[in-house]
Amino acid sequence: MNFGLIYVFLKNKGIVFFNKFRTKTYLAKMKNKSQILIKRPEGTPEMETWKLVENEVPKLNSGELLIKNHYISLDPAMRGWINSSRSYIDPVELNDVMRAGSVGEVIQVEGQTKFKVGDFLSGWGGVQQYSVSNGEGYFKVDPDKAPLTQYIGTLGMPGMTAYFGILEVGKLKADDVVLVSGAAGAVGSIVGQIAKLKGATVIGIAGGKDKCDYIVQELGFDGAIDYKNESVFKGIKTHCPKGIDVYFDNVGGEILDNAMIFLRRNARIVICGAISQYNNTEVKGPKNYMSLLVNRASMQGMVVFDYAHKYGEAFTDLATWIKEGKVKSKEDVYEGIENFYDTFLRLFNGDKMGKLILKVKENND
Amino acid sequence: MNFGLIYVFLKNKGIVFFNKFRTKTYLAKMKNKSQILIKRPEGTPEMETWKLVENEVPKLNSGELLIKNHYISLDPAMRGWINSSRSYIDPVELNDVMRAGSVGEVIQVEGQTKFKVGDFLSGWGGVQQYSVSNGEGYFKVDPDKAPLTQYIGTLGMPGMTAYFGILEVGKLKADDVVLVSGAAGAVGSIVGQIAKLKGATVIGIAGGKDKCDYIVQELGFDGAIDYKNESVFKGIKTHCPKGIDVYFDNVGGEILDNAMIFLRRNARIVICGAISQYNNTEVKGPKNYMSLLVNRASMQGMVVFDYAHKYGEAFTDLATWIKEGKVKSKEDVYEGIENFYDTFLRLFNGDKMGKLILKVKENND
Repeated sequence: MNFGLIYVFLKNKGIVFFNKFRTKTYLAKMKNKSQILIKRPEGTPEMETWKLVENEVPKLNSGELLIKNHYISLDPAMRGWINSSRSYIDPVELNDVMRAGSVGEVIQVEGQTKFKVGDFLSGWGGVQQYSVSNGEGYFKVDPDKAPLTQYIGTLGMPGMTAYFGILEVGKLKADDVVLVSGAAGAVGSIVGQIAKLKGATVIGIAGGKDKCDYIVQELGFDGAIDYKNESVFKGIKTHCPKGIDVYFDNVGGEILDNAMIFLRRNARIVICGAISQYNNTEVKGPKNYMSLLVNRASMQGMVVFDYAHKYGEAFTDLATWIKEGKVKSKEDVYEGIENFYDTFLRLFNGDKMGKLILKVKENND
Repeated sequence: MNFGLIYVFLKNKGIVFFNKFRTKTYLAKMKNKSQILIKRPEGTPEMETWKLVENEVPKLNSGELLIKNHYISLDPAMRGWINSSRSYIDPVELNDVMRAGSVGEVIQVEGQTKFKVGDFLSGWGGVQQYSVSNGEGYFKVDPDKAPLTQYIGTLGMPGMTAYFGILEVGKLKADDVVLVSGAAGAVGSIVGQIAKLKGATVIGIAGGKDKCDYIVQELGFDGAIDYKNESVFKGIKTHCPKGIDVYFDNVGGEILDNAMIFLRRNARIVICGAISQYNNTEVKGPKNYMSLLVNRASMQGMVVFDYAHKYGEAFTDLATWIKEGKVKSKEDVYEGIENFYDTFLRLFNGDKMGKLILKVKENND
């Protein structure tokens, strides 16, 4: 008997009812597949970094929720979380479920809880089918207002990062020339579109013709540089003849160094990520950093969590822009907890378009 | 007959009188020793980078001044000015007199001029005994208010750089922990003292016991790290157990990388210079720059000229602090235009204490 399907049926009919007894029977038979961190990688993570395990879903304590994860967010930042050192957030502990953003549905509660059964929530569900939580760090989302996947994309952390990164850290002005790397990615694509709709000239750097065509033809960027097939230096020189006012960096390495050559007076570099360096044991520092002095420019790091008190404002703006067709996004969805590793690697080899998502299989068997 | 000595005699008696005829006669016999840039160096400049020449002082045109340089300022920035590429200022052209800050005295004028004979001026006199100028870029200084050398030191560009660098770019707050490299130098020593008198905790990095003793015992720094004889990493760890709020960087390289490890949340790095890298053909970029992201920190470059409209304010403050004994400085003075090259090298090998100055010999023969 498939309790999952029965649950879905009941929920669709609006008849969701669990009594305590029923719930526990239900749970006793439920299995939870998860990806456990078992090794700290050096360089590019090997498959043995994580282990797929299947355990019974634990019994809920009072105040806890059981959340069925629908979509799991795969983000470059995850590479940093599995290093041993504390970064802006504690590392994932060995033998813990791999940390990940997620969106899912409350399917059971115990006692007094922050959310109720049937609520859709976004939060830190981890790379697993089911999450147990007291609700902290979760917030309710409305699947009627936007597809669930957008709550871990343009209306989630990547969107918030883009919004506060370009507007607050980048101090965007209408006549700025903006260069963004990782321009077809979840953050970069939104950065560019926000900058465009604020009046800036926007050039994106992306890998391959498809991505470059996408950001220009579908997202309305003013130009694209294909770092896999052309010189980034020449590309910037051609597309930004007067130089760059804001460089929004998701990649680091050679591209950051090239961008630095073209900084204009008082330019701002937003350090959002450095995906080209995450798997290096020795990071390549930007050798052209003295361009900051020559051009009185600044380079500033950001972590999106600092803007949590203003997520509402960003959410409203982004939702409006999406509705108006001014901000578009693409999602690249792969399926199955067991396929986490292969999907994760796509973050680093560039083999994905837009927001990378792992879908939890509908039928959890 | 020594016209120079006659001039000095007349001036000392307050009898300075030149008629046109007299001046020209006088000038016709005056020689000007200067250092000419004849080669663009790669790496550390060789002696053949400049050539000592002696020419007749040219006749003045209407509106021009003849300035007898007393002191010539030697600054790390000079290394940048002799590269072929434009930085924040045009490069010194080949066969031009080497650019340098200076302080000197007007000994002759022609027609209507901005300054008069006997005025002491600070400006860009270059590495030479006499400069001819229409007065642009020069400003009058008062030898009774401060020793002439201070107008190219604490009351000149190095002092202005320190003042605006730590207060405006560094956004100094009273409870900050400030780390400064090149701490016994013309800029670093003033940075540290300003930070101290504003209430901050100040640790300096300098090379050798003498410099470290000097900044702690004479300048009142809270601690010193001798980069030549101890681990900078361990030194910062010991002296800044809570990390750094402001790192004022004059040196770049390994020291910058070590400082980055200890940034606190919202820390500011002021990029004032990178003397460890100026003679490198390939600059070492800061490999720990992702600390900017983790700590939401910023790294900003500065060029003192941008603050020219506020030099008056800085001058008043610095002059007051000097008078009150709150800001002290040391000068390291060498003599003779012909000794420019050897003296210049002291900027890079650390073999100087405080502000490096080349004195023009009293007797110009």
